[in-house]
Amino acid sequence: MNVGIFGVSGYGGVELCRLLLGHPEVRITYVGGHATVGQPVSQIHPQLRGQLDLLVEASDPKAAIERCDFLFFSLESKVGVPWIREALEAGRKVFDFSADFRLSSVEAYQRHYGEHPAPDLLAQAVYGLPELHRDAVRATSLAALPGCYPTSAILALAPLAQARMIHTDFLVVDSKSGISGAGRTKWALNYHFPEANERVAAYSPGVHRHASEMDQELGLLGEPVSVTFTPHLIPMTRGILTTAYALLKEDATPAELLGRYADFYADEPFVEVMPEGELPASKYAHGSNRCFIGLTIQPGTRKVIVVSVIDNLIKGQAGAGVQCMNLMCGFDETAGLTGAPVWP
Amino acid sequence: MNVGIFGVSGYGGVELCRLLLGHPEVRITYVGGHATVGQPVSQIHPQLRGQLDLLVEASDPKAAIERCDFLFFSLESKVGVPWIREALEAGRKVFDFSADFRLSSVEAYQRHYGEHPAPDLLAQAVYGLPELHRDAVRATSLAALPGCYPTSAILALAPLAQARMIHTDFLVVDSKSGISGAGRTKWALNYHFPEANERVAAYSPGVHRHASEMDQELGLLGEPVSVTFTPHLIPMTRGILTTAYALLKEDATPAELLGRYADFYADEPFVEVMPEGELPASKYAHGSNRCFIGLTIQPGTRKVIVVSVIDNLIKGQAGAGVQCMNLMCGFDETAGLTGAPVWP
Amino acid sequence: MNVGIFGVSGYGGVELCRLLLGHPEVRITYVGGHATVGQPVSQIHPQLRGQLDLLVEASDPKAAIERCDFLFFSLESKVGVPWIREALEAGRKVFDFSADFRLSSVEAYQRHYGEHPAPDLLAQAVYGLPELHRDAVRATSLAALPGCYPTSAILALAPLAQARMIHTDFLVVDSKSGISGAGRTKWALNYHFPEANERVAAYSPGVHRHASEMDQELGLLGEPVSVTFTPHLIPMTRGILTTAYALLKEDATPAELLGRYADFYADEPFVEVMPEGELPASKYAHGSNRCFIGLTIQPGTRKVIVVSVIDNLIKGQAGAGVQCMNLMCGFDETAGLTGAPVWP
Amino acid sequence: MNVGIFGVSGYGGVELCRLLLGHPEVRITYVGGHATVGQPVSQIHPQLRGQLDLLVEASDPKAAIERCDFLFFSLESKVGVPWIREALEAGRKVFDFSADFRLSSVEAYQRHYGEHPAPDLLAQAVYGLPELHRDAVRATSLAALPGCYPTSAILALAPLAQARMIHTDFLVVDSKSGISGAGRTKWALNYHFPEANERVAAYSPGVHRHASEMDQELGLLGEPVSVTFTPHLIPMTRGILTTAYALLKEDATPAELLGRYADFYADEPFVEVMPEGELPASKYAHGSNRCFIGLTIQPGTRKVIVVSVIDNLIKGQAGAGVQCMNLMCGFDETAGLTGAPVWP
Repeated sequence: MNVGIFGVSGYGGVELCRLLLGHPEVRITYVGGHATVGQPVSQIHPQLRGQLDLLVEASDPKAAIERCDFLFFSLESKVGVPWIREALEAGRKVFDFSADFRLSSVEAYQRHYGEHPAPDLLAQAVYGLPELHRDAVRATSLAALPGCYPTSAILALAPLAQARMIHTDFLVVDSKSGISGAGRTKWALNYHFPEANERVAAYSPGVHRHASEMDQELGLLGEPVSVTFTPHLIPMTRGILTTAYALLKEDATPAELLGRYADFYADEPFVEVMPEGELPASKYAHGSNRCFIGLTIQPGTRKVIVVSVIDNLIKGQAGAGVQCMNLMCGFDETAGLTGAPVWP
Repeated sequence: MNVGIFGVSGYGGVELCRLLLGHPEVRITYVGGHATVGQPVSQIHPQLRGQLDLLVEASDPKAAIERCDFLFFSLESKVGVPWIREALEAGRKVFDFSADFRLSSVEAYQRHYGEHPAPDLLAQAVYGLPELHRDAVRATSLAALPGCYPTSAILALAPLAQARMIHTDFLVVDSKSGISGAGRTKWALNYHFPEANERVAAYSPGVHRHASEMDQELGLLGEPVSVTFTPHLIPMTRGILTTAYALLKEDATPAELLGRYADFYADEPFVEVMPEGELPASKYAHGSNRCFIGLTIQPGTRKVIVVSVIDNLIKGQAGAGVQCMNLMCGFDETAGLTGAPVWP
Repeated sequence: MNVGIFGVSGYGGVELCRLLLGHPEVRITYVGGHATVGQPVSQIHPQLRGQLDLLVEASDPKAAIERCDFLFFSLESKVGVPWIREALEAGRKVFDFSADFRLSSVEAYQRHYGEHPAPDLLAQAVYGLPELHRDAVRATSLAALPGCYPTSAILALAPLAQARMIHTDFLVVDSKSGISGAGRTKWALNYHFPEANERVAAYSPGVHRHASEMDQELGLLGEPVSVTFTPHLIPMTRGILTTAYALLKEDATPAELLGRYADFYADEPFVEVMPEGELPASKYAHGSNRCFIGLTIQPGTRKVIVVSVIDNLIKGQAGAGVQCMNLMCGFDETAGLTGAPVWP
Repeated sequence: MNVGIFGVSGYGGVELCRLLLGHPEVRITYVGGHATVGQPVSQIHPQLRGQLDLLVEASDPKAAIERCDFLFFSLESKVGVPWIREALEAGRKVFDFSADFRLSSVEAYQRHYGEHPAPDLLAQAVYGLPELHRDAVRATSLAALPGCYPTSAILALAPLAQARMIHTDFLVVDSKSGISGAGRTKWALNYHFPEANERVAAYSPGVHRHASEMDQELGLLGEPVSVTFTPHLIPMTRGILTTAYALLKEDATPAELLGRYADFYADEPFVEVMPEGELPASKYAHGSNRCFIGLTIQPGTRKVIVVSVIDNLIKGQAGAGVQCMNLMCGFDETAGLTGAPVWP
């Protein structure tokens, strides 16, 4: 099967290239770009010399549709929408990394991103988190891949939300992310190595737009929630660790909660629940599509602390795209995604 | 005036050397150690060649008392207690970096550290946080320097605690620390560079012993509290950023809260309150005794998010010791501590 | 085919696990250890939970020989020799990561490592660098995998050495390595994150034992040489960049030299020669078995500067082992090694 | 005395602010900028809030001359020349961080930087390396501060060059620098944290313009030389470690060479020669104006390996400026520069 990528110069794009080069069922036959048109991918990403020397073409949905069965869009919000529409109309399956189709509520979208570019397409979009929407993903042609923070937070809290075990009025999500989450092409002084090194900082405290995805998905599982979310950038390249704090409605033990998590994720190929007394480090997931989750309860209280980790560029982005592709195209769900984490 | 240091090989000790070498009123005349006896300090810390070539002596309170006016103890809990007792009896002023005299409750101490080594000395010890206890520090001979996490958390929340503006039943303190906080001489695989790099992890979630210091000090200011505290190690050397989440009892605006913080810290030489809309990064404090605090309120809610930063080895340890020394010895409170942060 | 590993707790071992888990022709059926006997591999390496839960057994060549076709030894020098001997006698193919069989000269070995543990086995050992010894590797049962520094230096200089184009009396090899090259289990203060971070240092200047491998292999290609080698540790986890400085016997242009390199490595699946004007960064090879080489000539002189990069744990260790396994066992040479570099 | 700074937004500027704030004899009374006019310095450098809230003014030599006794220029080459001329004519002392007045040969300058902006001022400029030109620095009004790489390389090789002990036809200087050396305001993808982290790369191999400074200064000491210089960026913020390789004309021992170095630097307040068998790490100099030098000889050869370290922003830039100011203005040479290195 033939795959095309719109937007190959960023981190989502290059990670997608790496994963697809190792995928047994597909080959990359189209790469669309803008500033890099006419260059081989290996000029933008020299580590791929001899592995992916395909030329970048001016973004053109017709060429892509003609030559590809599936299309990935790794673009800023709104930019890819006309091409996505055309691809869907031509019967192609689409995997979109932007925020355009993640929120089912147009109002919620507009609070963060402005005018919605294609409200009519929302009905067919599915939030591309197979752990919550596997059957819907299988059936759709338009996967809206989740934000990286929401993936880590939703997987951390889903079993508790579904069981309606926690108070929903004060739910703290404190995430720590590597700086690749800020992308490759948007520069800011804070990402300049000498400034970013030996530096941790919070940003968008309480107002980050990814909170809406968390509210939507956790609310769908159980009761309406409103998380208090603060992301932080820390001096590392990849990985997210999310620490979530919730208040249980009734007494429970860590073992009881972990049993619930184990059940919830029993058949998941990429989610691993840690044994009691162990929490995962971000590094566990490095370079893989895996998510690790651990939890504890503050002794003598009903305060539960859940820690989840993912690689923000894989389970948090490109790997999630490949996982949805596998489901939507009838491949083995784990095809191309079985690589073990890279350590150290 | 002459100063002595017990325990010079660790990060607290070497930072103390650096600060005292730059202090206008004192000189280091005694350095006590154990495994390094007979070596010049500059053999343990080669960066000090030609600046501090004093020989390390076997720890001996008599020699120290004879040659020094003030004594710093940068040792594990309990180890220095007999020497501290002797120094106090000889009329020397003592600055203790261990946890032995931080908690006024013997019960609280024993929950975390085992049998208390000198409950009779607790009455004369003062928690060495001048922002809360300046007069008491001036009057004591025994300063119990705070833990690094408590300093950042207490300064972050003190104005709210004092005003009794927040609910005390769910108060989240999520701290991110550089790895120097783990010390220099206690090794663990998690501190080995290839493991620690590109890694963030929580530890002691909900059970870290520093939480008791936060509870004690915030409780003294206003109502009894029980924080939910989770520290994290992130891949940097120095610095702590604490993100605290609290629930206001009544509606307020960020400007109102910031006004309260500005008042509370109006005369503090080392605490800087950020303007509305700005949060500090850990790097702001790097290499200095300064603490920066910013805050916001999640729109439409009563959830307040406070961010504070310090250099864990200075305001969080050695600098706090020098600040207490200045107060206890009648020097200018800022002597030796006016160095601007090192950037980048 | 079944594979066994002696020494799974270090970085060579865990990287071998990762590569072999992704290898289409083999499975891991035996893992031998010492301090970790009885634990699943996933307890030592938690990132492998659910992927490699095999129990570590006490190192036992009989069990390994019975259950495995090939055996990897990722142990300190000398430790594995008796087991290697037994495995060879039983007709098993052996891949040894230690230095025991790299140097064909017993005298050279003894200068660096002391008494040679098995001089009688040297005759059948082949230096496991397929780019220089592919046919011999295919034919042997005992591959002595090169040191990580020698791999980068020899590949950087082989085309010049073979062509006898450079003076051999002053040949400088200056290497910069990530700290994983120091291993996982040997701790030193210099590897402690707060000490290793923001630190570069040379070590073993002019006397590092890996220089003998470089001398041996470059000498075999052309004239006898004696390199001046200084390795440096820099604050990163993985990767080696080697900068080699040589003096040409006659005038040449960069294009001429690059042409020679292109010819020399024309059929190599893992060596990439950069175009004129471009030098590789260490990151190009990160997470892959690839080696990138670039060069230039100082204008107006005969001084050539060659830069090569590898991932020290893959092409410099575990990947080289798998590449030799593929050759010795008749698999496709690239099986299990086609993964693209991980970026960023 | 009153000091002015042109160009305060970069790393040279902010480090100068830090050092001058701690200097006992001067105060900053003028700060000139361009894009930041009207802002307090503490808005550009928030870590200085409350310490340096002076407003940035449009660069104006008249205002600066009127209000300041000395002027620092931390600007790109050529930009500050007209203002420097005016300041000199008004009798002010000038410290210039650009390359404009470092090279006494107009031809050498033009090879690297294009047309020389003020050849007539060259005669009064002095290369601001007190270790080689102390008396001349004292006597001049125009100090041309050295490049950071040249400072480390010249100090490493000066005693050998002066003694004419080394062959001058093949002299290798391999430097490793933290990324702050690339400045704060010139962005490149290679400085973006996710790209710069876990990455080492050579740049300008054999053609870096700093080589001309090394040739000039080492040549002045003894025989004409032409170094082969390759700088590398490594993933750290501050510091340079230079490894220099030279060929002795006659046999010598490390002790003999170290004796010569000790003599050469006997009265230097900021240069420390390591004992035999020890080499410095870059971290030794971190945050200080110190330079550490160690060396060895490859056994059985005449190849000498010298390692020097400095903090690129202090001894390699701002500290050198303050040191020259102290000499030119009759202060104690070490005033404001006695701070011990920051560790870890």
